[in-house]
Amino acid sequence: MANVKKKILMIICDGMGDRPVPELDGKTPLQAANTPNLDKLATIGKNGMMSTLGHGVIPGSDTAHLALLGYDPHKTYSGRGPFEAGGIGLDLLAGDIAFRVNFSTVDENMTVIDRRAGRITEGTDKLADALDGMTIEDVQIIIKAGVEHRAALVLRGSGLSPNVGDTDPHELNTKVLEAKPLDADAKAEKTATILNEFTKKSYEILDVHEVNVKRKADSQQPANIVLCRGAGAMPKIQLFSEKFGLKGAAIVGIPLVKGLCRIIGLDTIEVEGATGSANTNLNGKVEASLTALEDHDFVFLHFKGADALAHDFDAQGKVRFLEDVDKALAPIIDGLDEKLIVAFTADHSSPIVTGEHSADPVPLVIAGGGLRIDNVTKFDEISASQGSLGNLTGSDLLPMLLGLGGWRKMYGA
Amino acid sequence: MANVKKKILMIICDGMGDRPVPELDGKTPLQAANTPNLDKLATIGKNGMMSTLGHGVIPGSDTAHLALLGYDPHKTYSGRGPFEAGGIGLDLLAGDIAFRVNFSTVDENMTVIDRRAGRITEGTDKLADALDGMTIEDVQIIIKAGVEHRAALVLRGSGLSPNVGDTDPHELNTKVLEAKPLDADAKAEKTATILNEFTKKSYEILDVHEVNVKRKADSQQPANIVLCRGAGAMPKIQLFSEKFGLKGAAIVGIPLVKGLCRIIGLDTIEVEGATGSANTNLNGKVEASLTALEDHDFVFLHFKGADALAHDFDAQGKVRFLEDVDKALAPIIDGLDEKLIVAFTADHSSPIVTGEHSADPVPLVIAGGGLRIDNVTKFDEISASQGSLGNLTGSDLLPMLLGLGGWRKMYGA
Repeated sequence: MANVKKKILMIICDGMGDRPVPELDGKTPLQAANTPNLDKLATIGKNGMMSTLGHGVIPGSDTAHLALLGYDPHKTYSGRGPFEAGGIGLDLLAGDIAFRVNFSTVDENMTVIDRRAGRITEGTDKLADALDGMTIEDVQIIIKAGVEHRAALVLRGSGLSPNVGDTDPHELNTKVLEAKPLDADAKAEKTATILNEFTKKSYEILDVHEVNVKRKADSQQPANIVLCRGAGAMPKIQLFSEKFGLKGAAIVGIPLVKGLCRIIGLDTIEVEGATGSANTNLNGKVEASLTALEDHDFVFLHFKGADALAHDFDAQGKVRFLEDVDKALAPIIDGLDEKLIVAFTADHSSPIVTGEHSADPVPLVIAGGGLRIDNVTKFDEISASQGSLGNLTGSDLLPMLLGLGGWRKMYGA
Repeated sequence: MANVKKKILMIICDGMGDRPVPELDGKTPLQAANTPNLDKLATIGKNGMMSTLGHGVIPGSDTAHLALLGYDPHKTYSGRGPFEAGGIGLDLLAGDIAFRVNFSTVDENMTVIDRRAGRITEGTDKLADALDGMTIEDVQIIIKAGVEHRAALVLRGSGLSPNVGDTDPHELNTKVLEAKPLDADAKAEKTATILNEFTKKSYEILDVHEVNVKRKADSQQPANIVLCRGAGAMPKIQLFSEKFGLKGAAIVGIPLVKGLCRIIGLDTIEVEGATGSANTNLNGKVEASLTALEDHDFVFLHFKGADALAHDFDAQGKVRFLEDVDKALAPIIDGLDEKLIVAFTADHSSPIVTGEHSADPVPLVIAGGGLRIDNVTKFDEISASQGSLGNLTGSDLLPMLLGLGGWRKMYGA
């Protein structure tokens, strides 16, 4: 039988890796959780550890996922803005400068009263429409509302730079910041000027907008300014299909990672009840990924819950979520054959004891596809370290899967 | 609890790694030694192997320690001279050319009679004073005596190069070498000219120096010339505190490694009876390192004995020294908690059977700090290879410790 290309399913359980947790008798959540399906996957696969961005690097979610999806973050990353904007549904062009923004509340002295404008849930699309499309100098302003107070802002024009500071002071009872250029380049200065002008105009327009007139009348905080952070330049980035030759799909809840997937041209598949949190529709996402595999070569499936629970220091919750993921993955693992390669891993560790991303490597299992099977029979941080894959980096993973899956040409003859 | 920065103690047992020794029934000295404390450290930590400068590279002590302390030897190393000079207490400037030198004995034909001038122990500071401060062309000569016949020489001036050969022939009954430029650059030629002129003057001045007049009268070999070797340029090197953001201290006996620590700005702490050999004050060094941890973020603790004993082909001595180190480390290991990360390893292997540095990887254990614990329960070259850290290089170690210790910023968001 000749070499047949195998489909690839990459499953990322965000923040899964951990350290010994006193509350779990010194076990990690993965060690404490009852995960018969993941243990089966370890048993029928080969296992190892992965430092997503190299030894000792504490990965961000954006940079880690760039590496996992085969892109060099050092070449493609200048800030999370473009990925957040992509996740909200904006189509960006190379060179666009994008920001995460909040609709917030300021008083007449530009002092921040509420960064989330009373957790506004309705009307932000109208507020965005009132600002979207304006031009400042030769720069076009593009803004789109997301969930609740969140939105994305894009500056499109010549001579712009991502090296500008935030206007969001990240604190209450503090004045809105003046965006500062972060380098001596005239581009950074121009971008800061545009951003400050936009910020001023956002207040002038939004403070008297009918949505806010009504909110004030109802004793709600008006969403009367746009506060910006996380500037990033939209990179010149090759589509996944062009770069690797596979038709890909992504099932992702959180905007940051969804945006990245959209930007590299993966088909982002919406799943009812997929929230990007612990109470997401796990079964629906798994079902959607199996369906997507029918007409895609590569499917990227992302679960956010474990990371969110670690940020909340919720050890029992993280254990339960891992057990829920384990149950949800049963249909994939039970049906695994030589036609599909599954990789199950994390983008980074998020230890319960710190509640933050950490540099600890993450466990990885690669199974199916008729590939090798090593001696590991449990899935956790220590068991995986005994596996045949050794220590990898995130940038090893996709090339390895593509090579093993028959998607790469022989080097040499 | 948010992320708390953890203190770091890096302990280097120089030349600890070994190969099977026939005299030890085919065990390595670490396997043959009774090391209950190191075994405990392995049990409560995670273990692996490290090729300090990469697979197959036989590390020097200077280059290995540069890598272990987070510096790229390929960018910062051109010869051991500057580190020896730093170890003797000279303050070097970037661009200085430094040499290890001996006060030696030559006859009137410049034939070397004794490279160590009868192992002279007294008067070398006066001999150094007689030469220190002279200028040759526009180059300032700086020389300082060290222990016994040893000293350091620095050439300070414009247009100098480390690419010059030794004047020390490394053999007896051989003429003093004329230093040769090792490349076609005019700088190397100038440096060789200065060095040869200095060598001539050192004989002219020292042969009639009162110290030597007395030595000759006492039938001792006169220390009547300075023989140079190990040229190196003082690199532009960033201070450890600036590069990594930690306040560091070092407890080191041997001048080469002490000099490196001084050059990167670690506080070098003197310990009574710390000799840089097997009969050093191990307990005193351990005590000093625990004290240093009270007001430093990073402490580097170095034991030289194992390497020296391997150079002497002393298998039993190396076993005993490792057992002594094991006992001395008990206070550190017994008190280890989540606030301190300890790394215990070597700079390179020094197999008893060869008596020289070798490319064999060294065992490494990282424990404490609330970090992961793997399944390894013994500390030796083979047990550590079964651990969760896999195979690392020396340049991985410090970044890994800094990342796990919470000293690095997240890359991305």
